[in-house]
Amino acid sequence: MGIVLGPNQYGKAENRVVRIYRDTPRHEIRDVNVSTSLRGDFSAAHLTGDQSRVLPTDTQKNTCYAYAKEKGIDAIESYALSLGRHFVDDVGPVEGARIEVDEYVWDRIEVDGEGHPHSFVRRGGETRTTVVTVDGKGDNQRTWVVSGFKDLVVLKSTGSEFHGFLTDPYTTLQETRDRIMATSLVARWRYADNIDVDWNATYAGIRAVLLARFAEVHSLALQQTLWEMGKAVLERFPQVAEIRFSAPNKHHFLYDLSPFKLDNPGEVFHADDRPYGLIQATVVRDGANDPGLAWYTVPAFA
Amino acid sequence: MGIVLGPNQYGKAENRVVRIYRDTPRHEIRDVNVSTSLRGDFSAAHLTGDQSRVLPTDTQKNTCYAYAKEKGIDAIESYALSLGRHFVDDVGPVEGARIEVDEYVWDRIEVDGEGHPHSFVRRGGETRTTVVTVDGKGDNQRTWVVSGFKDLVVLKSTGSEFHGFLTDPYTTLQETRDRIMATSLVARWRYADNIDVDWNATYAGIRAVLLARFAEVHSLALQQTLWEMGKAVLERFPQVAEIRFSAPNKHHFLYDLSPFKLDNPGEVFHADDRPYGLIQATVVRDGANDPGLAWYTVPAFA
Amino acid sequence: MGIVLGPNQYGKAENRVVRIYRDTPRHEIRDVNVSTSLRGDFSAAHLTGDQSRVLPTDTQKNTCYAYAKEKGIDAIESYALSLGRHFVDDVGPVEGARIEVDEYVWDRIEVDGEGHPHSFVRRGGETRTTVVTVDGKGDNQRTWVVSGFKDLVVLKSTGSEFHGFLTDPYTTLQETRDRIMATSLVARWRYADNIDVDWNATYAGIRAVLLARFAEVHSLALQQTLWEMGKAVLERFPQVAEIRFSAPNKHHFLYDLSPFKLDNPGEVFHADDRPYGLIQATVVRDGANDPGLAWYTVPAFA
Amino acid sequence: MGIVLGPNQYGKAENRVVRIYRDTPRHEIRDVNVSTSLRGDFSAAHLTGDQSRVLPTDTQKNTCYAYAKEKGIDAIESYALSLGRHFVDDVGPVEGARIEVDEYVWDRIEVDGEGHPHSFVRRGGETRTTVVTVDGKGDNQRTWVVSGFKDLVVLKSTGSEFHGFLTDPYTTLQETRDRIMATSLVARWRYADNIDVDWNATYAGIRAVLLARFAEVHSLALQQTLWEMGKAVLERFPQVAEIRFSAPNKHHFLYDLSPFKLDNPGEVFHADDRPYGLIQATVVRDGANDPGLAWYTVPAFA
Repeated sequence: MGIVLGPNQYGKAENRVVRIYRDTPRHEIRDVNVSTSLRGDFSAAHLTGDQSRVLPTDTQKNTCYAYAKEKGIDAIESYALSLGRHFVDDVGPVEGARIEVDEYVWDRIEVDGEGHPHSFVRRGGETRTTVVTVDGKGDNQRTWVVSGFKDLVVLKSTGSEFHGFLTDPYTTLQETRDRIMATSLVARWRYADNIDVDWNATYAGIRAVLLARFAEVHSLALQQTLWEMGKAVLERFPQVAEIRFSAPNKHHFLYDLSPFKLDNPGEVFHADDRPYGLIQATVVRDGANDPGLAWYTVPAFA
Repeated sequence: MGIVLGPNQYGKAENRVVRIYRDTPRHEIRDVNVSTSLRGDFSAAHLTGDQSRVLPTDTQKNTCYAYAKEKGIDAIESYALSLGRHFVDDVGPVEGARIEVDEYVWDRIEVDGEGHPHSFVRRGGETRTTVVTVDGKGDNQRTWVVSGFKDLVVLKSTGSEFHGFLTDPYTTLQETRDRIMATSLVARWRYADNIDVDWNATYAGIRAVLLARFAEVHSLALQQTLWEMGKAVLERFPQVAEIRFSAPNKHHFLYDLSPFKLDNPGEVFHADDRPYGLIQATVVRDGANDPGLAWYTVPAFA
Repeated sequence: MGIVLGPNQYGKAENRVVRIYRDTPRHEIRDVNVSTSLRGDFSAAHLTGDQSRVLPTDTQKNTCYAYAKEKGIDAIESYALSLGRHFVDDVGPVEGARIEVDEYVWDRIEVDGEGHPHSFVRRGGETRTTVVTVDGKGDNQRTWVVSGFKDLVVLKSTGSEFHGFLTDPYTTLQETRDRIMATSLVARWRYADNIDVDWNATYAGIRAVLLARFAEVHSLALQQTLWEMGKAVLERFPQVAEIRFSAPNKHHFLYDLSPFKLDNPGEVFHADDRPYGLIQATVVRDGANDPGLAWYTVPAFA
Repeated sequence: MGIVLGPNQYGKAENRVVRIYRDTPRHEIRDVNVSTSLRGDFSAAHLTGDQSRVLPTDTQKNTCYAYAKEKGIDAIESYALSLGRHFVDDVGPVEGARIEVDEYVWDRIEVDGEGHPHSFVRRGGETRTTVVTVDGKGDNQRTWVVSGFKDLVVLKSTGSEFHGFLTDPYTTLQETRDRIMATSLVARWRYADNIDVDWNATYAGIRAVLLARFAEVHSLALQQTLWEMGKAVLERFPQVAEIRFSAPNKHHFLYDLSPFKLDNPGEVFHADDRPYGLIQATVVRDGANDPGLAWYTVPAFA
């Protein structure tokens, strides 16, 4: 029985590109981490070590930096689309490309109540992300954009319950009508298409809706909160086909102060590290277009 | 147009279970990190906050610890299979389970040339892994086992070339006939079935073959080395249906010592952090059985 | 020749205490990481295993959580002072205590333009810190407070030069009149005393001055920038005796785009990880009081 | 009242130097992380931005790589001594240098029962360390060597008790006669002088003694174990003046299986992350020579 090459891709990961716009004294900064993956028939490289169809990962790196100048980084989505199309359109053996971009946001340093023109402080908080996939040449080319963020840490100090759950012989958990709910949220939404989207404004809008719904929904479970958050996004942003969440339940355990004759009515908690609940859910527009390769990568769980 | 719940799963991640076998004065230790994910129809939990079909993640945690006693941890694969089958077989609403286990290995501390009976030192190096998926009840139940390791760091100080590659206007890389090749390898192999596999012996055997092939193959590219490594595994282990690699090319750049009038014939290198090449490849047995859900998880790229 | 016990201390590190103030519907949150270290004559515990003078680290943990209720966490400095004095005053064998507190800041989630009463988003950015040392019983007791922050990442996209430096045969660096200067700043300032300091207001004031000076100073070297930043703090805050900086020079290298026939006048940079310059400097008030044990910990470089 | 410059130092941190010895077909590898810090009168650089006495950190980097060729890396101690003396002896304004080196160990990959000549696998486990300080020019020059390791993770599954401790109103801990004791050990020992020390053999010897004593000592507390470990080193290695430990008590909590009607006689544990006990202790030779600057660095607790 034979042995054959299966799914494969290769690229340059984590190019740390910083682009300064300095056409006026008031500089702008874009700080991104770009990873490229190319797909196509690279079997010769694997089977015989023949590199003649392999564009080096070093070249992909050069292209990421050069495109920061040639195309600029207005939104990470448009920058990723430029890179992805370039590799597929301009490099013969490349039949597909996946471009992943993370963005770190900087604020202007405030001096005498005004933002400084060329001095910045990194904001921290969540990282904005996009994953663009381009597949096929010419008229058959298809493109997908999945944008979102990771590491948005949110917490409700009340307005969260958890009860009425299924029990079995291994269940010891007590029901609660008032707990802290906290998560470090990953959200990724797939755009229905990539025509005429205002990437930066849409990002800001979706982020605001997600935060507001997290705040407003009286929670009976993290699952329900995620559903309400996702539903609100789909209701207000017709350009979004689906949204996916990965939400670790960052447990805050009420600390037992009774040995010290102290009441603890929801005031002192231990923020635990591990284990953590992990809730993953998708909210989809009914009849949304086929996701195609939008969520695809060569899976190795790593 | 409606909005509906899409793919979802939930569980308890990173339960840090340590199991001591102390039936004799010569203790044994199993040190694992277990994550559970359950699948099924949990739409009520999302849509209305009704938890009556939701087995709490806290219960899943309890089960991981209880099973370390009830079933033991002989191999991480058998432990994961026990857990996965339990959730699907014994919990009504659960239709599928994905159990991921990482294992940290401990060696006995040597005292006067002998391994101590109850004192250990953590080995370091790679982490052994398994991902077990159980889907369906009763006669329709299917099970997949994907085992492997992550973070196995290997390096060749010669015997690696890279030339004859495709070039384009963004290419500046020089060809080389002798370079350092290094990677922090993730390997995951899918067992054709899970009947009568000696998990621990097979793991050790595959690891040894992978290391030996990495050492022996004169490399024309990391792709070719991975292919040869995977092919050797499939040739010698008929129980393996496919193997997947994720291999960051950890670049070691020859340091330019010429300004100091020093030769540097492959002797002094800078080990760079980012960016890094990332090669992902699969080697499959021709006609292997359908992978089914073996590689599936709710994708959120996170 | 004899062997004796030297400097030692012990405690509970990284207690993750979260304190919710919920006396009104508008909750407040304090999220801290507390580490305790106790000093005294613990030689019996070391030499013979006699624990009769050792307050368990578990008790220290309990105290951290209990004090979050009993004393509250108005400022991390006042909370740390309460803990430090308690251990020294109330536990017989304890002659000194070092309490370290890190604080993570949360902002209210904005809903319809207003901050939500009980839903928060973690701000990210720098971590506020304090290290309080209490030494001696009764009238001989002395106390030191060293406050600051870590991981404040700042960047200037121009207004930074580096030239006129010493050269030797290993020097290849070119002079520059315009570069990016960036650092992930650690700053720690020692209060001259701890009487009548408004900890929170002073923290905010010093942080603002440091940021503004970083922005305003035209830099000839990171050393000079740090000096100007520290000097400004001492000039405006008489309660500060000295300030120390540890500032990694996060190198941003201009990417060479000339092979692609592209100009790069300070626009496209590679943000490198390692190695990095590391500048450590102290600015002191002339005639400041003796720092005593303010900066002391049992040194093990770890 | 004036403001003055206090303690300061600067250098290049984390140079990732890899040195291959390839004089014969059987290669050797040294993989290190080197950090340099220079001391002297650098007040002009701070006060006026005058760099004429400042050897760039870039030059220090070049020197680390060049010395890997010129002097080689036999032991990290000899390499660090060469670098430290060079900076102080050869660079006019430099009056002191602190060189820190971490080493990552590689094993040969085994093929057919033999170690491969040029293929290696990284061992993992602890990192060997050294910190060399050189102070003063010419006849007044003094030198200190502090060597050790970090991240050596050890565990005893029995042979550890904890009882008879001091209690106060915040104490809830129960006494135990049998527990798991585990730590991720940092050990640093100061050599009495640096003449005729066989660095590599002494390192291996001390490491073996520390491990053996950890295994053999029936422990009444981590403090007592550390004392016994340190004492054994001083008894057997006259070249060592003192040894310091920083030992997080990595808590393994017995999991309560009683709700599931399961016994748990020391078999199933939860390995907790935070908080952790932290024990720091020093064992010194009575009448050891003055440590001088051996343990000194500009303190900023970071």
